[in-house]
Amino acid sequence: MTGSHSVLDNNSLDNMLKIKMPAVGIDLGGTKIMIAAVNSEGIVGETIKVPTPKSPPNILNKFVELINQIKKEHLIAGIGIATPGIVDTELGIPIGATGNLPGWTDTKIKQIIESQTLLPVYVENDANAAAYAEAHTRNLKDKKCVIVLTIGTGIGGGILIDGKVFHGANHGAGHCGHIRISTDNKRLCTCGLFDCYEAYASGTGLLATAKEILANVNPSQSPLAKDLALLSNEAVFAAFTNKDLIAEKIINTWHKHLAIGMASLANALNPDCFVLGGGLCNFINYELLNEMLIDLTLPKINENLKVYKSELGYHAGMIGAAQLILDKLATVN
Amino acid sequence: MTGSHSVLDNNSLDNMLKIKMPAVGIDLGGTKIMIAAVNSEGIVGETIKVPTPKSPPNILNKFVELINQIKKEHLIAGIGIATPGIVDTELGIPIGATGNLPGWTDTKIKQIIESQTLLPVYVENDANAAAYAEAHTRNLKDKKCVIVLTIGTGIGGGILIDGKVFHGANHGAGHCGHIRISTDNKRLCTCGLFDCYEAYASGTGLLATAKEILANVNPSQSPLAKDLALLSNEAVFAAFTNKDLIAEKIINTWHKHLAIGMASLANALNPDCFVLGGGLCNFINYELLNEMLIDLTLPKINENLKVYKSELGYHAGMIGAAQLILDKLATVN
Repeated sequence: MTGSHSVLDNNSLDNMLKIKMPAVGIDLGGTKIMIAAVNSEGIVGETIKVPTPKSPPNILNKFVELINQIKKEHLIAGIGIATPGIVDTELGIPIGATGNLPGWTDTKIKQIIESQTLLPVYVENDANAAAYAEAHTRNLKDKKCVIVLTIGTGIGGGILIDGKVFHGANHGAGHCGHIRISTDNKRLCTCGLFDCYEAYASGTGLLATAKEILANVNPSQSPLAKDLALLSNEAVFAAFTNKDLIAEKIINTWHKHLAIGMASLANALNPDCFVLGGGLCNFINYELLNEMLIDLTLPKINENLKVYKSELGYHAGMIGAAQLILDKLATVN
Repeated sequence: MTGSHSVLDNNSLDNMLKIKMPAVGIDLGGTKIMIAAVNSEGIVGETIKVPTPKSPPNILNKFVELINQIKKEHLIAGIGIATPGIVDTELGIPIGATGNLPGWTDTKIKQIIESQTLLPVYVENDANAAAYAEAHTRNLKDKKCVIVLTIGTGIGGGILIDGKVFHGANHGAGHCGHIRISTDNKRLCTCGLFDCYEAYASGTGLLATAKEILANVNPSQSPLAKDLALLSNEAVFAAFTNKDLIAEKIINTWHKHLAIGMASLANALNPDCFVLGGGLCNFINYELLNEMLIDLTLPKINENLKVYKSELGYHAGMIGAAQLILDKLATVN
């Protein structure tokens, strides 16, 4: 019976190691790569940031180089990679829409990195990985439906159902920035379509709204109207803080646009909550947004609907990618 | 071994009976009740239609009376009830939004009908029940995501994920008619909010679109413009068939509105397909709608996206309710 006892002990040790053993989390962006060791509780040690190399082979080589660097400091269970674009998560290949990473579509990321590191690799779309991390951090993984929106230059989205990333029929679910909020072909979105949510409620959309409103404003009413070519969201936020009434109108309209897209998602999916991340989530008036959202959603659906601000900021994608591979390994074993 | 063999035979017989044994399906509407025996393959025998009684107790009594009538002809496994409003399916109680059935909210349908019939009862929202039936009939239950829209006076919706009705956090998911497709507070919806998908793409929305377009049209251009107070969708469809150019513009705009809401849902959820039911699904040009939808959805998401016309028509809710209780019983046993 001693042998069997010792096996149990080894299993317990294995499990303890697995809980604490980190994975490498990588977030690939158009301009930079972020990488760190991440365990179930968050980042362990240092986060490394390097510029994104120009070609897919160079990106993959940089991944391997950085992974090896992390492996010198940590015993690593696996590698999670967050990348722009629609990802076939079974194959670990981005299959579409990676505009600012030329040639990256169809790169066999999982296969190549696994063969070069001999570690298990999981690849996920960056917004989905971020959504997973935000839900994980807030103990929202037992919720029926969590929608995470990343409000930056564009709007990224990730939908979690029963704690799992919802991928839809063809790996493309979660493109919440591309629900339509107008019938009028008024604003062109970066995706080539008109009137996407992103064209109104993202940073780009906010600037467009500001220019539309300021086009009819005399500089004596608001200094923001002086030179529209130089206008920035930062200037609008600063003017708003200084109680500029036109800036207030712009910010209110932006909140209304934010609420409209969220209300559409809420009425269709009846989520438990939204989590808002991305650079612009720091400029949102959550009380105002909540009020507008509740006004635009149906009774019952708005009853316990919560809106949270991201806790992980720019690290969400990297942390989520690592936690996805860790949770995948925990399920397999 | 004979005993054990006979147990096996009884089990097989049980299973055979279960496959063929029908449930009672009931569809409660604001004006009429539909009821029939339904098995896994569809309606068995006659469908009974009676006017909806005025008060909740009378509705429940009518249910019991009709169930007893069906029980005379069929051996019944259970009862499925489709009702307007958000339904707590665990408790079998409509918990909200049953405007045209005064007092119906909070009626303990499941408990009362179970105690009076001694049969298991399952209650589901009518659009969800219809969605379940449409997916069942078309063998779409193994699909990741099926969205069923009922285009009638309003727009009902049901979302199936992995073959199951998706209820969201609070039983309210699937209110696809209330995603917003404008920012302008242009059209008031019956729900009290502005610019819902339903206010544009439903029968009510189509008529509003027709009146908007015809307000600027001289009767010499289209006879439809003669008396807007008397205008009906039927007249618009008839004029369209007669190649009235204004009617064509109205119908095209309606298709555009239909496509916009579907595109929003598609970009967020990446469904395998849409199934369109309701009275107006017979007037849709599916080729045109498909083209518009593909134009408005992102690459990959639109790759294999299908749009089907309902096969069950007005019977979908009743059939779905019955099949839900049958499938529930099959899972339990």
